[in-house]
Amino acid sequence: MATIARLNQQSATAEQLLRAFTSVRRQTGALAAPLSAEDQLIQSMPEASPTKWHLAHTTWFFETFILAPHLKGYKRQHPEFEYLFNSYYKQLRGHPLRSRRGLISRPDLNEVMAYRKQVDEAMLAFLPDASAELLELVELGINHEQQHQELIVTDIKHALWSSPLQPAYIDARTPKHSAPPLRWKNWAEGVYEIGHAAGSGFAFDNEEPRHKVYLQPYQLASRCVTNREYLEFMNDGGYQHAELWLSDGWDRVAANSWSVPLYWQEREGEWWNYSASGWRPVEPDEPVCHVSYYEADAYAQWAGARLPTEAEWEVAASSEPVRGRLLESGRFHPAAADHSQMFGDVWEWTSSAYSAYPGYRRAKGVLGEYNGKFMCNQLVLRGGSCATPEAHIRASYRNFFPALSRWQFSGIRLAK
Amino acid sequence: MATIARLNQQSATAEQLLRAFTSVRRQTGALAAPLSAEDQLIQSMPEASPTKWHLAHTTWFFETFILAPHLKGYKRQHPEFEYLFNSYYKQLRGHPLRSRRGLISRPDLNEVMAYRKQVDEAMLAFLPDASAELLELVELGINHEQQHQELIVTDIKHALWSSPLQPAYIDARTPKHSAPPLRWKNWAEGVYEIGHAAGSGFAFDNEEPRHKVYLQPYQLASRCVTNREYLEFMNDGGYQHAELWLSDGWDRVAANSWSVPLYWQEREGEWWNYSASGWRPVEPDEPVCHVSYYEADAYAQWAGARLPTEAEWEVAASSEPVRGRLLESGRFHPAAADHSQMFGDVWEWTSSAYSAYPGYRRAKGVLGEYNGKFMCNQLVLRGGSCATPEAHIRASYRNFFPALSRWQFSGIRLAK
Amino acid sequence: MATIARLNQQSATAEQLLRAFTSVRRQTGALAAPLSAEDQLIQSMPEASPTKWHLAHTTWFFETFILAPHLKGYKRQHPEFEYLFNSYYKQLRGHPLRSRRGLISRPDLNEVMAYRKQVDEAMLAFLPDASAELLELVELGINHEQQHQELIVTDIKHALWSSPLQPAYIDARTPKHSAPPLRWKNWAEGVYEIGHAAGSGFAFDNEEPRHKVYLQPYQLASRCVTNREYLEFMNDGGYQHAELWLSDGWDRVAANSWSVPLYWQEREGEWWNYSASGWRPVEPDEPVCHVSYYEADAYAQWAGARLPTEAEWEVAASSEPVRGRLLESGRFHPAAADHSQMFGDVWEWTSSAYSAYPGYRRAKGVLGEYNGKFMCNQLVLRGGSCATPEAHIRASYRNFFPALSRWQFSGIRLAK
Amino acid sequence: MATIARLNQQSATAEQLLRAFTSVRRQTGALAAPLSAEDQLIQSMPEASPTKWHLAHTTWFFETFILAPHLKGYKRQHPEFEYLFNSYYKQLRGHPLRSRRGLISRPDLNEVMAYRKQVDEAMLAFLPDASAELLELVELGINHEQQHQELIVTDIKHALWSSPLQPAYIDARTPKHSAPPLRWKNWAEGVYEIGHAAGSGFAFDNEEPRHKVYLQPYQLASRCVTNREYLEFMNDGGYQHAELWLSDGWDRVAANSWSVPLYWQEREGEWWNYSASGWRPVEPDEPVCHVSYYEADAYAQWAGARLPTEAEWEVAASSEPVRGRLLESGRFHPAAADHSQMFGDVWEWTSSAYSAYPGYRRAKGVLGEYNGKFMCNQLVLRGGSCATPEAHIRASYRNFFPALSRWQFSGIRLAK
Repeated sequence: MATIARLNQQSATAEQLLRAFTSVRRQTGALAAPLSAEDQLIQSMPEASPTKWHLAHTTWFFETFILAPHLKGYKRQHPEFEYLFNSYYKQLRGHPLRSRRGLISRPDLNEVMAYRKQVDEAMLAFLPDASAELLELVELGINHEQQHQELIVTDIKHALWSSPLQPAYIDARTPKHSAPPLRWKNWAEGVYEIGHAAGSGFAFDNEEPRHKVYLQPYQLASRCVTNREYLEFMNDGGYQHAELWLSDGWDRVAANSWSVPLYWQEREGEWWNYSASGWRPVEPDEPVCHVSYYEADAYAQWAGARLPTEAEWEVAASSEPVRGRLLESGRFHPAAADHSQMFGDVWEWTSSAYSAYPGYRRAKGVLGEYNGKFMCNQLVLRGGSCATPEAHIRASYRNFFPALSRWQFSGIRLAK
Repeated sequence: MATIARLNQQSATAEQLLRAFTSVRRQTGALAAPLSAEDQLIQSMPEASPTKWHLAHTTWFFETFILAPHLKGYKRQHPEFEYLFNSYYKQLRGHPLRSRRGLISRPDLNEVMAYRKQVDEAMLAFLPDASAELLELVELGINHEQQHQELIVTDIKHALWSSPLQPAYIDARTPKHSAPPLRWKNWAEGVYEIGHAAGSGFAFDNEEPRHKVYLQPYQLASRCVTNREYLEFMNDGGYQHAELWLSDGWDRVAANSWSVPLYWQEREGEWWNYSASGWRPVEPDEPVCHVSYYEADAYAQWAGARLPTEAEWEVAASSEPVRGRLLESGRFHPAAADHSQMFGDVWEWTSSAYSAYPGYRRAKGVLGEYNGKFMCNQLVLRGGSCATPEAHIRASYRNFFPALSRWQFSGIRLAK
Repeated sequence: MATIARLNQQSATAEQLLRAFTSVRRQTGALAAPLSAEDQLIQSMPEASPTKWHLAHTTWFFETFILAPHLKGYKRQHPEFEYLFNSYYKQLRGHPLRSRRGLISRPDLNEVMAYRKQVDEAMLAFLPDASAELLELVELGINHEQQHQELIVTDIKHALWSSPLQPAYIDARTPKHSAPPLRWKNWAEGVYEIGHAAGSGFAFDNEEPRHKVYLQPYQLASRCVTNREYLEFMNDGGYQHAELWLSDGWDRVAANSWSVPLYWQEREGEWWNYSASGWRPVEPDEPVCHVSYYEADAYAQWAGARLPTEAEWEVAASSEPVRGRLLESGRFHPAAADHSQMFGDVWEWTSSAYSAYPGYRRAKGVLGEYNGKFMCNQLVLRGGSCATPEAHIRASYRNFFPALSRWQFSGIRLAK
Repeated sequence: MATIARLNQQSATAEQLLRAFTSVRRQTGALAAPLSAEDQLIQSMPEASPTKWHLAHTTWFFETFILAPHLKGYKRQHPEFEYLFNSYYKQLRGHPLRSRRGLISRPDLNEVMAYRKQVDEAMLAFLPDASAELLELVELGINHEQQHQELIVTDIKHALWSSPLQPAYIDARTPKHSAPPLRWKNWAEGVYEIGHAAGSGFAFDNEEPRHKVYLQPYQLASRCVTNREYLEFMNDGGYQHAELWLSDGWDRVAANSWSVPLYWQEREGEWWNYSASGWRPVEPDEPVCHVSYYEADAYAQWAGARLPTEAEWEVAASSEPVRGRLLESGRFHPAAADHSQMFGDVWEWTSSAYSAYPGYRRAKGVLGEYNGKFMCNQLVLRGGSCATPEAHIRASYRNFFPALSRWQFSGIRLAK
């Protein structure tokens, strides 16, 4: 997917986008390939969507915002899909309830794959002559699909874990690494700039405008919290000491009987967790994952630290090369930079509520609903996880989820 | 399915059961045939189950109660199915939550069909030499599967109606009939016998023992309440007058905004209802269907009548030939009998709470959970519907559902 | 209250009713006397009502059904009370939500007591000249108030137990008795009559008409199940064995973590229960009390018995003198009769769902809502408890509550 | 209450605190005076507490954090109150469920008033000799009680409105004012300081430390949004246009059928709202009040503006004299300052999520739970309302409530 990386420059040409489009669409299909039609239908909770729905909705996005309004003579082959695969755009003609996406047995998977193919063909024919403005929409559609690629992984992981037999999604064992000692990097007080700079490649509207922030002096941890460290917290009664917890978090611990991260289980005195490859013993040196904001915050309290703000995180991340799990040099490379694991290991909870940057404006029209209307009761996560398409990762990227969410690949980096 | 009818005699031979088994198993497959793998997975509410689950659970029943304990050397090919497809037998080793049957994407439909085939072959090999006692279990399993045949129909109807596109299940238009005038048949006061007589063919344990009841003089309507009559109730403000309703029913009307039977909809001033063949205009002469007990009771109040007790119904039904919708002579045949539509049109709500007949005893062991543990907060329905396998219909049969249930084919016959 | 007892004859004179009215109204006040204004306001669950509300509602009953429509020139001093203290009569002009009776801080207790006084005076002035028809309404009002006397006791017990300090309601220790051995009395098969005979004194409409029932031979236990016996059930894992329970009951046990009757608690290895006089050690020889229908049924399963039907109970009770806890001869008097504790110890769950007797008709008009609209999803209890006004007890009386109710004084008598 | 104002300086002497203590305690009693014992018990929703509970809890605060640990020989007269009137401090020995405070009928109001008196006397005897450190705790207790004074008003307003007769709390008509035209004040880009400066009088820990923030250029409205303006929003379909709303807000509008602010009602074409003095016609020139954050944000969207951040608000407020509704010069005084109604009219929703200032540290020990554990899923409100004790108002004060809250006196000021 190197193609997409090149998009992160001023001018993505039609040709570049065509290659990116082809590559991303193919990659989505590859994510669904290990799954049966039935796997692709299940919805294990209202927050998660069926794979088949992701396949169709990403296609709907191109059809609804590009082909239908802009390709002359384009006719929807399935007019009912306009309603059926709308996610949440209220300015269109309605959409099914999010919690009931698992009921969409029709169209079946074959029909959805045919829908993908038909829209792909129309897009490929349309792209070479598209205007610059429409190319921007195409780029948005590609990035939108990349977001759903990650959701396909997180949602099917939850779905298969929720099904009684808990099968593996794929066979994807990763090599083991030892975690280096935790170090603290100092950052000086002062005015910094964060946010995506207009004209420097693709970004979502919520990353803009670039703007100044004032930061007090702070320290950021050199790596994420590991399973080994989190186990110390657990063994020290972390889940039993109310004073470590936010009030809402403590209520949630009680109501849901949380005592471990999501997907963890004790088996005869040993800890196991459920991964894309099925159940396996917990790897002590890996970053702890699938914790809620409440757990991240309680851990930080226990550790005598705190979570970073998103500005603190971004300032540090901007000085780092985008390096992640997939680089040959390996996961931890202390010589190369002050912070490892900033990108592509786990999403890192920040203490920043998701809200508009100063000067942010919702786009006019339907796409104004893309990001802006979710700016309440969510926390920003930064960095990207092992499920994030690599080309989709950048320092200014703002992911966001409610504090109680655990099914994303979310972990912890400490600040002071 | 004439074979099963012959079972209703003292001694069902192994050969008869073998033919019945073959026929019923084949018929279950035929019910699922119009549905895709995805259709067969959806569960639209906790009370309804996926088709695939019905296919597997009925198979599990034969494997668990007959093959595994009684066929020497029988090995479960899928030991995990013992847990997976247990419905509610607490004395076995647990079962998945009923509300989460829609998450069982694995095994997929092909594997379930293979499971059916494998168990069928084992059963057919086993049957000829089975003891009389085991033949009784086989007969129970066949009747159990017939119950699930009806549930396949009621559940998939609800599922497809719940899915956004509301497709039809099959193409099954029925010929129209005119409803004859309503007449009242008098029944004299006295001691009657109801319940299934031991030794007269198959019956569930809840139909026994046959016993005496004392009935006051009563009148029973000659046919079911029609859609036309029910529309009069609706047009007279039936759903707005609290004094017609049971207290619980009135609360339900308010909470669920009920104003029509389930599956009804107004389209430009005309009433339509959703059937197995999809949406169609309401047929005025058909029995009203998909009403809750609350609606049946309110209608009876409005009509100056009441619902019959199950004893009143059975006494009347026992004097009738088992005739139903499928007979060539037609649905209404006033000359032939005093009551038409007793069997096979709609299940008829009675005012009798589902409880044990005097002298009833739960069977020992796991199968004691089959019927007895549900004898609370449910009402008895009698007769059988268009979705009931014809051979499964008999005068002593006791169906039962909570008062608020509407997704069964439930209708109304009045008494006085 | 001997006066009320005499009402149980054909003709209650105005003078008799006047004395009964005075006595019952005074007794209601006596029940509230130990409670502060604040005690009388609390509502610990939607099913229970504040004492103050009971005081006002019973007064409202006389004002609404007798004074307002029938006393010439009567003016409601508080017109808003017509709405405010209506319980559930939908044909009047609405009523507050039942679950929000605890919010009625205004009128305060003094105003409610003044309301009682004002209505009492109007009633006493009105009664001597009232027609026979109106005297029937007065009698109904008196019996209605007696029902609420019992509810005052059950509801305040629950309220005070629910309040953090769990104070005692009154100081009312009762003398201890030893329970005699359990014996079984045989009843012969045949046609019996049950129900209240018209013209034999006051009864609610749901006790009528008297009618014939056919009973199979049965046995009824000579006394109620004791705490000692119930503890054996508990110690034998009664709450852990699913096969003993109705399906709904088992779900309830799990959802509510039931493992003991309501108001029980273990303190250092000893069982205590909360009574009107506060916490005290469980008395082994007393009838077990505050169990749900589910627990009663599970106990009966465990004991190899069953619960009686209401007809079985009434036939046995009709042959007994109305004797109860308050008679000098004591609670258990084996020589006097075959069954002790039939009246006035604990309400006894029967296996009969609450439904209309054959020939029952709801009264016309508003009072038709008194009993008839509750005939669904409730079970009949018979006998009367220590909280039931003694004059209110009779063999034909039908109390009714949902199967999960435990805050009434409900116990168990076995049948076979 | 001028005394408390003087506390806002470096050194509150014991004598000053003694006078402040006396004054504030007396004022709390005055707020409860118009209410009966029953009024003071009702809890209309889990978020609101009974008046009596507020009276006791504020007293408990002094007893628990000052008298019990620091006054030699002090004995709790009611040891059970330590548990009973604990609000949410998990490090103490538990507390009753917040949603069940309305069940605390014992102690009754007289006992609670006696408790107040007893603690007051002990405090007054103790204060003259208290150490500087303890005086800080006393000051905290006084400010804590002032917070509860406001809650007494907001909670009883909701309680009385929730009770069926909806009586007035007090008779407190306010004079009418005309709202001047809305003007916009410009604020320049740059680094500002916000937060409470250590050593400049009392503040809660969440107002500290004072720290630098970088603000982009912005405009702030000269006054709050009026009822007249809000009615234009309503009349323009504000509650019907999804695109104006945050996603969560839109769901809430649908779920709760919101179409007006809390306490509003249409009566024959005219708008009324419920005030402390009961129902009255909506006053067009008053600030709109009792709106949720969702409504405030949707209004701002509709008006082409946005809500200010808390930093923007505080920077503007810090340049204003603390002036409010009670000053003789009147509510709107354009000559005096650029912004009117900053203090003491309505709490103004900001777009800032409630979180820790940089460098904030939770206090050690139990009082660390006072503020810090609520820093999630709440929005900051600024300014103070008509129910806020005047001496309690300051520019750095941070109030916080969940986005859906409407029962506080919350209104809207726009920014750009």
